[in-house]
Amino acid sequence: MAQSESLFALSNGHIGLRGNLDEGEPHSLPGSYLNSLYELRPLPYAEAGYGYPESGQSVINVTNGKPIRMLVDDEPFDVRYGELHRHERVLDFRDGVLRRDLEWTSPAGRRVAVKSTRLVSFVQRSVVAIQYEVTPVDEPVRIVLQSELIANEQLPSAGNDPRVAAVMEAPLEEEEVESNHSSATLVHRTRRSGLRMAAMMDHQWDGDDDVLVTVNCYQDLGRVTLSTTLDPGQTFRLTKLVGYGWSSRRSRPALRSQVSAAVTAAKHTGFDGLCAEQREYLDDFWARADVQLDGDERLQQAIRFSLFHVLQAGARAEQRAIPAKGLTGSGYDGHTFWDTETFLLPVLTYTAPRAARDALRWRHSTLDLARERATQLGHPGATFPWRTIRGQECSAYWPAGTAAYHINADVSDAVLRYVHATGDLEFEREYGLEILVETARLWVSLGHSDAAGKFRIDGVTGPDEYSAITDNNVYTNLMAQRNLRGAVNVVAAHPEKAAELGVATAEVQRWRRAAESMYVPYDERLGVHPQATGFTDHERWDFENTPASHYPLLLNYPYGDIYRRQVIKQADLVLAMHLRGDAFTPEQKTRNFAYYEALTVRDSSLSACTQAVLAAEIGHMRLAQDYLSEVALTDLDDLHHNTGSGLHMANLAGVWLGLVAGFGGMRDHDGSLTFAPRLAPDWTRLRFGMIWRGRLLRVEITQDSATYELAEGEPLTTRHHGEEITVEAGKAITVKIPPAVTPVPVNQPPGRPPLVGDPNPWFS
Amino acid sequence: MAQSESLFALSNGHIGLRGNLDEGEPHSLPGSYLNSLYELRPLPYAEAGYGYPESGQSVINVTNGKPIRMLVDDEPFDVRYGELHRHERVLDFRDGVLRRDLEWTSPAGRRVAVKSTRLVSFVQRSVVAIQYEVTPVDEPVRIVLQSELIANEQLPSAGNDPRVAAVMEAPLEEEEVESNHSSATLVHRTRRSGLRMAAMMDHQWDGDDDVLVTVNCYQDLGRVTLSTTLDPGQTFRLTKLVGYGWSSRRSRPALRSQVSAAVTAAKHTGFDGLCAEQREYLDDFWARADVQLDGDERLQQAIRFSLFHVLQAGARAEQRAIPAKGLTGSGYDGHTFWDTETFLLPVLTYTAPRAARDALRWRHSTLDLARERATQLGHPGATFPWRTIRGQECSAYWPAGTAAYHINADVSDAVLRYVHATGDLEFEREYGLEILVETARLWVSLGHSDAAGKFRIDGVTGPDEYSAITDNNVYTNLMAQRNLRGAVNVVAAHPEKAAELGVATAEVQRWRRAAESMYVPYDERLGVHPQATGFTDHERWDFENTPASHYPLLLNYPYGDIYRRQVIKQADLVLAMHLRGDAFTPEQKTRNFAYYEALTVRDSSLSACTQAVLAAEIGHMRLAQDYLSEVALTDLDDLHHNTGSGLHMANLAGVWLGLVAGFGGMRDHDGSLTFAPRLAPDWTRLRFGMIWRGRLLRVEITQDSATYELAEGEPLTTRHHGEEITVEAGKAITVKIPPAVTPVPVNQPPGRPPLVGDPNPWFS
Repeated sequence: MAQSESLFALSNGHIGLRGNLDEGEPHSLPGSYLNSLYELRPLPYAEAGYGYPESGQSVINVTNGKPIRMLVDDEPFDVRYGELHRHERVLDFRDGVLRRDLEWTSPAGRRVAVKSTRLVSFVQRSVVAIQYEVTPVDEPVRIVLQSELIANEQLPSAGNDPRVAAVMEAPLEEEEVESNHSSATLVHRTRRSGLRMAAMMDHQWDGDDDVLVTVNCYQDLGRVTLSTTLDPGQTFRLTKLVGYGWSSRRSRPALRSQVSAAVTAAKHTGFDGLCAEQREYLDDFWARADVQLDGDERLQQAIRFSLFHVLQAGARAEQRAIPAKGLTGSGYDGHTFWDTETFLLPVLTYTAPRAARDALRWRHSTLDLARERATQLGHPGATFPWRTIRGQECSAYWPAGTAAYHINADVSDAVLRYVHATGDLEFEREYGLEILVETARLWVSLGHSDAAGKFRIDGVTGPDEYSAITDNNVYTNLMAQRNLRGAVNVVAAHPEKAAELGVATAEVQRWRRAAESMYVPYDERLGVHPQATGFTDHERWDFENTPASHYPLLLNYPYGDIYRRQVIKQADLVLAMHLRGDAFTPEQKTRNFAYYEALTVRDSSLSACTQAVLAAEIGHMRLAQDYLSEVALTDLDDLHHNTGSGLHMANLAGVWLGLVAGFGGMRDHDGSLTFAPRLAPDWTRLRFGMIWRGRLLRVEITQDSATYELAEGEPLTTRHHGEEITVEAGKAITVKIPPAVTPVPVNQPPGRPPLVGDPNPWFS
Repeated sequence: MAQSESLFALSNGHIGLRGNLDEGEPHSLPGSYLNSLYELRPLPYAEAGYGYPESGQSVINVTNGKPIRMLVDDEPFDVRYGELHRHERVLDFRDGVLRRDLEWTSPAGRRVAVKSTRLVSFVQRSVVAIQYEVTPVDEPVRIVLQSELIANEQLPSAGNDPRVAAVMEAPLEEEEVESNHSSATLVHRTRRSGLRMAAMMDHQWDGDDDVLVTVNCYQDLGRVTLSTTLDPGQTFRLTKLVGYGWSSRRSRPALRSQVSAAVTAAKHTGFDGLCAEQREYLDDFWARADVQLDGDERLQQAIRFSLFHVLQAGARAEQRAIPAKGLTGSGYDGHTFWDTETFLLPVLTYTAPRAARDALRWRHSTLDLARERATQLGHPGATFPWRTIRGQECSAYWPAGTAAYHINADVSDAVLRYVHATGDLEFEREYGLEILVETARLWVSLGHSDAAGKFRIDGVTGPDEYSAITDNNVYTNLMAQRNLRGAVNVVAAHPEKAAELGVATAEVQRWRRAAESMYVPYDERLGVHPQATGFTDHERWDFENTPASHYPLLLNYPYGDIYRRQVIKQADLVLAMHLRGDAFTPEQKTRNFAYYEALTVRDSSLSACTQAVLAAEIGHMRLAQDYLSEVALTDLDDLHHNTGSGLHMANLAGVWLGLVAGFGGMRDHDGSLTFAPRLAPDWTRLRFGMIWRGRLLRVEITQDSATYELAEGEPLTTRHHGEEITVEAGKAITVKIPPAVTPVPVNQPPGRPPLVGDPNPWFS
């Protein structure tokens, strides 16, 4: 049930509703979220330390506007009682609605058919709409519908898994409950963080004459009750419109008016109008972003599922953070991490660039906090938080939090990618430059030049969380190098703006020197890059004697044991070979991939997609296909057993990355867009589109050839397997795919091959 | 005030009383402790992890038996009011008592002279005795004395310094309060840990006729009130006897009887008798252990102060832990760490070997808990807790707790030293062997053989807490090597006992091979040993730009910043050169010492004594003298600004180590006792005694020569500056001291030379 609530979640990036049933119960985790509406909670430390954050931010379950309860004669409709003849729920990726269709007989023998359609509008950001239809099947039935707004719902406790969000009891303090005819409004404020929110519901229905409508308000509850009697085959249709608003600054009356206006506008549009807008918005998205795969229908479904949810997470976040779980659950406390920039934003950059721009503007808006944090830690410049909602560091375990400085390079990388892909120089000047400059300042302070003149960055944690506080993590060093070079370039492009930030020539020289002399450790004995200095000298994890039940390792072994051994939670050096593929030779990639493949257990969902990308590049096409399948089914098959607390957004973005960067071989190093497509053995065709500097480029791949097609815009010069090609609008180019080199076989740790998943229960 | 309460603390290792004033107030930190009587407190984690301990143990302030309040006519005696004409307190190292002598005029003009003598008996372990005398000076005065037992005293809050103990409110639950004539008994139980304690007080006084005695009991309070009227010059003398007992198992009546018996025995002995026993006990100790230094009277006082407190901490601990602060304060939660074995036990081994044996038997008694912990962490054998009272791991910050595996080698080293020094083979067989075997099992599991066949130990934290989770910490590797060799040897010596522990030949072979192939990193470029692999590649701490107010660094910089740089909190590689001096050449010692001297900030009190020892060995005699001075004055001058929460016991032991191992050049590697004495420039004579296999050896050092003298026992062959000498009982041998080589100068980080301390206010 928890999993289905996540899978069926609706969101526009601003509002998120878990797929809870209309009637509220049974539920696993009730969830209604407003992006960045959080409560503070103290972070306790048995042994405190300098610079440990004192309070954390947790996403809260806001006033729930979903419930429409129903009394059928004397029986409350509840699927746990009576008899459920059929019950189908469909998440429609084209229409952007969640549909439900069921037939139920009450314990007293009254049979009704129910249909509901739920929508979180992409177009009207503050609006949720639900259409609820009930029809008696074989005899007249008295129907009472209770439509509610509920604040401070009781939540299940979160258990001991540290990855599941801390659950806070009753975070909302009531300021106002108000009702009027068929509507009710609740205004609350969070107790500690002092954020104000309002929710209003209003209703429309057919056949006024026979319907008795009453409105009640209680503590934390608004209820509109509609009572009527229906003949068999007669349908009663209720439309519920809910408006949400929140602010840290606006007054109670202002917020109340705001949600009232939102509901009024939605009423004006009407339910059908909202649906039409929704469809139009999605038609536009799919026209750009749809990925078609022939040869695996189940995977095709999973691909669209992932794109739909990535869009839902980012579409209207609008300068607020995109959390790791989107707005589909309270997992990870609703925090955003580096994976938004590293996995989500590449997808949005090429399919919904405006959303990518907004997400980066959110990061930019937190720069003052990042500067404060850097100052507290003794650095110049800025350092972004490892996990946060609003911008303050909320990580309470510094070896895998503060020490993971790579997040700063990840943000910078996303900035550079966005600017390269869009040519948005205004963004570069107004936002990008400041991010690049402040992070470059951090890097030169964090690292140092050693006796041999190499620039080292010691004591940091890379992406792989099964190592910590290491020296010269290759990923970090290479990404910092890109960050420093990027800063040098943007400063040269916008000298006046740079001068405003106090950038001097000597400082830029320092960045350039650090980038040029960046140390990248290499193990000559093994002929591979160690993930960080000394990594390849460590003992190999005893995979052979690790039972399957002991994964994920972090829940069954102490960090100390994990850190001292060669075992990898998630792609780190392999991710460096994707994002900084320009820094490795093909031979190094082949050897490194084989070495790390045998050590990577994928206890994180941020690994398989990267392994798919590199496997495809090296020529392990079957392995790449298997990894892509794992990525695509991670949530649909609940492969990590925690989809219930929310979808793995970065992993869902990884589906696109695995397809486009993996099988499409798309690379975008330093603004140079190239392809090296090659299909998985079981597929017959892969087709995807992406936006590149205002053009829509479509690539279609078969086993033998690839076709590049420009729907519009200036001719585009790119590379296909290293060979330069120019694509002109309206003139598709088809080129042969060179035969694959069969690489030496690789293997995973015992028991850790790509996961195939169960037969997909969501596939129809 | 807090400092004086620590300095004037009395203890026998079983009971500890801070030097609070008789009348209770003013106080800084009231403190009465019973060794190992602790309360549990939850250890909170904002982000939990596998193997993190869930609850900690904190020493509690037990029922206070010290207070004797006085009413002088209508005025309570309180030094904050009225006029204090003189006030002297003397801690008498010969008599083992705290004396107080004062004259005070009340705000109403009544002048009285007060003397008190407080004693915690070395001979009667459960007994505290206080003699309180009051004499009106110039006119008759009505005197009321209120002698109290107070449980759950209110304590000041501990502030934010993580090093100061967590203070728990009212940890004791009353089970019984009882009074009888002139006595009262309080029985309590700790709320969470369920330990029962009883305290009883009884009284004796002169001149029964004129004294009205009443007894009252309240919640958490027993009070005996004596009222009398005194003429000028007439002295009223009250003797208060307090008995303490506690147990996790014994019943309430049993404990009540136990303390009653203790008080009865003490009454039978009488106050004078208790004082006489105390003096006899100390005469015996000083005859063995006294260290005489000519040329620095202040240092001479500090030396005896330190030895007295080391004896107080260890004398009657009797198979309970000796905490880092002894029983002088609640600092570090009353926990014991590795420093007991590494710093305290060498002193006790050579001056009070029975106390050393008892302390090691305590460790042995925790082996089951250490085995459980090892199992939890996935290791065979046993791993001792980093900090504990009873034996369970209480460290909530694993990088400086669990990862500091060296504690296991430190315990083993103390076992080996004790056995070598005493020849106590029964102890070796019954206790030592099991410790050595179980820790050897840990080491071979923790480390591994690398491709080159070297045995590496990765991911551990050495003594220096400004690095963490490092590979091949030289100290750890060398001490583990000794541990493994020791295990091989004791198994050979006691094959039957070893067989009982399941030790097989192949296992011993593994230990031997690990020891023989132990990897010790060396930096060829710099010609020094890195503290751990890669240490010398790190950036040097920016000492020049670190203001004095930013020490200790851990309170002003994040761990991450500290760990990634070359900066040392406390001797680590230098400690390895002391304890495993046999593993370094003299040239290496000289170069290493210079290198690490420039990086060591001594933010720990466990450093200066080791630096003194190595400075003396290398020939930096002035520097050694300065470090010894710092060690000796650490608490007397409150050099670390936290003596108030208790004395630094290991540092106090370091005074003896600095003198005997430093200026005496005493080394005891693998049971071979040698000397290389050399005096500090300002001194004229140093004389110390030590027990070696039942003999009392005395060494007297002047600028030119050293005299070895055996008070009793078989002839002893040792070495003097490498030259073999044999000392026979009664025949002193005087040998020349070879001229010192003047070493190249060394320097400390800016602003961190040895601390000289203020003119000692305690010196008289």
